[in-house]
Amino acid sequence: MIERLAIVGVGLLGGSVAKAVRAHALAREIVGIGRDLTRLGPALRDGALDHVTTDLADGVAGADRILLAAPVLANETLLQRVWQAAPAGAVLTDVGSTKRGIAAAADRLAAGRSEIHFVGSHPMAGSEKSGYAVARPDLFQGATVVVTPTESSDSAAAKGVGEFWAALGARVVVLDPAAHDRAVAAISHLPHVAAWALVDAVARFEPDALSIAARGFKDTTRIAASDPDVWREILLDNRDALRGGLAAFRRALDDLEALVASGDGAGLTAFLARMKTVRERLS
Amino acid sequence: MIERLAIVGVGLLGGSVAKAVRAHALAREIVGIGRDLTRLGPALRDGALDHVTTDLADGVAGADRILLAAPVLANETLLQRVWQAAPAGAVLTDVGSTKRGIAAAADRLAAGRSEIHFVGSHPMAGSEKSGYAVARPDLFQGATVVVTPTESSDSAAAKGVGEFWAALGARVVVLDPAAHDRAVAAISHLPHVAAWALVDAVARFEPDALSIAARGFKDTTRIAASDPDVWREILLDNRDALRGGLAAFRRALDDLEALVASGDGAGLTAFLARMKTVRERLS
Repeated sequence: MIERLAIVGVGLLGGSVAKAVRAHALAREIVGIGRDLTRLGPALRDGALDHVTTDLADGVAGADRILLAAPVLANETLLQRVWQAAPAGAVLTDVGSTKRGIAAAADRLAAGRSEIHFVGSHPMAGSEKSGYAVARPDLFQGATVVVTPTESSDSAAAKGVGEFWAALGARVVVLDPAAHDRAVAAISHLPHVAAWALVDAVARFEPDALSIAARGFKDTTRIAASDPDVWREILLDNRDALRGGLAAFRRALDDLEALVASGDGAGLTAFLARMKTVRERLS
Repeated sequence: MIERLAIVGVGLLGGSVAKAVRAHALAREIVGIGRDLTRLGPALRDGALDHVTTDLADGVAGADRILLAAPVLANETLLQRVWQAAPAGAVLTDVGSTKRGIAAAADRLAAGRSEIHFVGSHPMAGSEKSGYAVARPDLFQGATVVVTPTESSDSAAAKGVGEFWAALGARVVVLDPAAHDRAVAAISHLPHVAAWALVDAVARFEPDALSIAARGFKDTTRIAASDPDVWREILLDNRDALRGGLAAFRRALDDLEALVASGDGAGLTAFLARMKTVRERLS
């Protein structure tokens, strides 16, 4: 049982953790920390949080478990202040979409104060919608959460963070931060870039066509409505891994276009059939 | 009331038309025409069709309304045979995803036998699934159907084809064949190419990442599981319009990547915010 869980940033992910922890009775007390008290009000009123504060040091004082749920670069900045204010033995995690930056920051901070333990997490359960209003207690049920300990992580803390997400119903996958960042560049950041580029291409090239867009276009571009502030930070933080993904994507586009341009029907059928097989394996 | 509706190709779209026409009691008799009698069996047994045949001339004899629902290039080939076998006054339409080719073929055939009328249709209600097993009587309810008369189309026939789809619950949009083909290159063919390229890029660049793929990747690539034979024909038939769409898509990718590479946070936020606005207008 967690004595006191402090959640820094109570939006879709932070709010869903509060609701899920409450629903599973995993913590005696849940504290929400944010920059604006009025935006923390709904979570206090509906019982997901016990206390709210705008004072980071005050909020994390006495917390044995601390979750950073602000945008990725903000988490890296907040980590330093949390590290100083947290009680000895506290286990910190986050919900950020990139993991090398915060893991490196934690390793540096641990060299100074080793009784604080950080192990990164990335719940693959985001949405193009954001804010506490769309938080759900079952958001992590059946979702994949990647936990990213480093060589210097405390093993009990790493185990505890994995068990925490498993208790909320998630499938936990352990990857080192660099492997995580490459993987999400491929299956998350690259698809976002493709979705934004599709919307931009149609809006510039054939804007009237948007009026007849059907389910195929809508599904393919749903994530183009994702939060610009959250995604600016993700793209900038993971730009090197994304560059590799984009290069592979451009090669795939070139290959497909060459088959179409040359009228290679058999080659085209073989390419599309191979993609169908790969995609259908994902269910 | 249609006296005798002949449907050439009873898969997802042809089968859904049969079921919808039956449900709305729009035709006295529905004939299904296919290459394989055993595959027509289910639609005959469940009452969507009254007769089935593998003989095209026999199937369209006596039909006042004929629907071509085979893959696009097959429809163009079949059109000539249907034109010869159809009774005078018959109104022909199709459900193909490209429209210039079949419209030009129909204009040529009408020069020889002007008492047959063709007006193309494209129901924007496909799926990555195919075959009669996934046909539904409500497939066109609320869907957009683009009807594509040419300057030489019979106006009563064009009106009749539009009213037919409207009676099945569709929103009918009228475009000339060239405008249609440019529009679907943008909002349908280009997203398919992007989805296939995404799957290919991840499968080549970071195959292990597929195991943590979440809803974002799955939605963005759902259409990568579309039927290879159907899509080979669409891509080849509309290759010139697709080339324009791909060029616009590559420019959008370049612009986005340049913002990320240069670390232009403000420019990136503005780009993503603009895309969010465009995408959210589609609901």
